[in-house]
Amino acid sequence: MAKEKKSALKEKKGIQAPESINTSSIDKLKSKRHKQPSAEDLISGILKGDMTALSRAITTIESKNPSHFEKANTIITGCLPHANKSIRIGITGVPGVGKSTFIEVFGSHLTDLGKKVAVLAVDPSSSLTKGSILGDKTRMEALVKNSNAFIRPSASGDSLGGVARKTRETIILCEAAGFDTIIIETVGVGQSETAVHSMVDFFLLLKLAGAGDELQGIKRGIIEMADLIAINKADGDNIKSAKLAKVEFNRALHIHPKKSSEWQPKVLLCSALKSEGIEAIWEQIQDYIHQTTKNHYFKYKRSDQNKFWLIQTIEDHLKSQFFNNSDMKLALEKQLQLIEENKTTPFAAADYLLKL
Amino acid sequence: MAKEKKSALKEKKGIQAPESINTSSIDKLKSKRHKQPSAEDLISGILKGDMTALSRAITTIESKNPSHFEKANTIITGCLPHANKSIRIGITGVPGVGKSTFIEVFGSHLTDLGKKVAVLAVDPSSSLTKGSILGDKTRMEALVKNSNAFIRPSASGDSLGGVARKTRETIILCEAAGFDTIIIETVGVGQSETAVHSMVDFFLLLKLAGAGDELQGIKRGIIEMADLIAINKADGDNIKSAKLAKVEFNRALHIHPKKSSEWQPKVLLCSALKSEGIEAIWEQIQDYIHQTTKNHYFKYKRSDQNKFWLIQTIEDHLKSQFFNNSDMKLALEKQLQLIEENKTTPFAAADYLLKL
Repeated sequence: MAKEKKSALKEKKGIQAPESINTSSIDKLKSKRHKQPSAEDLISGILKGDMTALSRAITTIESKNPSHFEKANTIITGCLPHANKSIRIGITGVPGVGKSTFIEVFGSHLTDLGKKVAVLAVDPSSSLTKGSILGDKTRMEALVKNSNAFIRPSASGDSLGGVARKTRETIILCEAAGFDTIIIETVGVGQSETAVHSMVDFFLLLKLAGAGDELQGIKRGIIEMADLIAINKADGDNIKSAKLAKVEFNRALHIHPKKSSEWQPKVLLCSALKSEGIEAIWEQIQDYIHQTTKNHYFKYKRSDQNKFWLIQTIEDHLKSQFFNNSDMKLALEKQLQLIEENKTTPFAAADYLLKL
Repeated sequence: MAKEKKSALKEKKGIQAPESINTSSIDKLKSKRHKQPSAEDLISGILKGDMTALSRAITTIESKNPSHFEKANTIITGCLPHANKSIRIGITGVPGVGKSTFIEVFGSHLTDLGKKVAVLAVDPSSSLTKGSILGDKTRMEALVKNSNAFIRPSASGDSLGGVARKTRETIILCEAAGFDTIIIETVGVGQSETAVHSMVDFFLLLKLAGAGDELQGIKRGIIEMADLIAINKADGDNIKSAKLAKVEFNRALHIHPKKSSEWQPKVLLCSALKSEGIEAIWEQIQDYIHQTTKNHYFKYKRSDQNKFWLIQTIEDHLKSQFFNNSDMKLALEKQLQLIEENKTTPFAAADYLLKL
């Protein structure tokens, strides 16, 4: 019952165009909720672009209640033929880089161009920190009120794999609901970048011009993933250091071998706060889509990502099935101890554990 | 029978101090071989530093004949209490960088200092290319004849995991035989670096000064693994470009965040051909051992590596058990096809395959 309440609350949070929601509409929703719309209702709602249906369907996907799994699968299967028609953009950057402001301005720029923009997030830590990113929608005031935008905080979950799965499935629903641009935000720490990189077409890394050593503290591999680096807050007194940072990052980009997309990532300056440089970033993304569609990399990458998630899901399952039981955990500890004592090798220990 | 012959041949190749081997000693070996020395014989031989016993024991480890597995395990277990007392150095670099010459000169420098040096290789491709590295021992003439050195070509195998396992086990045997410095060579391409990096204490990257863009073509992640970069062939007309390359690589090294070893990798110049700069490289390695012993990273890393190999071996097994059967391969292809056609998602496909 407590769970039910929590999920209703979440759904409420997920509803767009909050200005149109007054107490009575929530009441209506509540009474409607008792009827539990069927998977078919939700699918037809989504295909009509009904944001309430979309929100409720996502809540079903995110539910940990096993009785919702089948319904979730039916919804996804029903939406699938209408999916895959968007551009998926990943955006990452360390806390403080101004991701929320950037997405607010960037997303509004896109809706001004007639795009329909969904903003999702992957943040496996959000269940602990109670939603560190996109949790506070007030940071995206304009976008929240924008009827061509849909913002959904990160699914919560114990594992990155679980959160990533729910986000991938949410992308399908958003695409079926007519969103042609999907932005997926993630924090610039931890392994979530790799997961997001594996579900988007284009990966944008937001950076700041630091005071000193510009490149310190960049997580290994993140620069390699970037299709574009945008140095945010390049305004006022920051401009000089931002230009210096641009040189440094350009050099860092050129260290790495050419990508299989044949795309050469660039470094751009921008100021989300002053709405500067946003158009140039969107132009880069369009160039990328154009180039990779032409050389077929776009399609190849999506197909490769599908394969990646299929294999990854199976492997995650096999591993957790093997390791996640208390007997095995004890036995594993014991073997590690024996290895430390030079009484067995990692390989002999593995053979032993596999025979248990 | 054909296999038997091949393995005898390999063993012959593995015997050290070839000048002492004449036809009669091979005959003796052959007749001795019919008796099949027991695991206990081999262990006691290894502990006495008998190179023939060591070679034969390694051949047993490398054997694909299931009847040899138990014997191999007995030998390893017997050697274990005497292992773990060496410094393990990984050396990588693209073909043409002069690895063989470097190891020849570096290894001879170490034996001159009273060290006992074993040179192993990890090259999963060697079964295809018939041993591209360390295959031709004539490239290490001095070291081959050196009674304080032991050279063993890469184990052959279908998978990197298999080759890596055999090499890890061979390290144990070499250490038990009294070798205090283990050099593990690998080629600068493919994933074998990661495997070697996970079995050594110190990772040396050999580079060349290129004509133009020094950093082009560096495999992702290799620079991050390096505890030292040595630019080889820094002699004659090359010196100027080698010095330029040093600046470039130093910059590349500083891009990356500080290692958990707290070690700051350096770039040195050397010329294996002229025996220049070799001592400075050895000094770096000693400094590293000193520093990481003091901050306990040395011990931590070995323990971490053991855990890595234990988990890795189990995971590899689980995966191959699941995927390596023809029914599953067909079903997997089918599901991938359905994903392409938007009829299922990678996650639903995974769920389906896991239930088969």
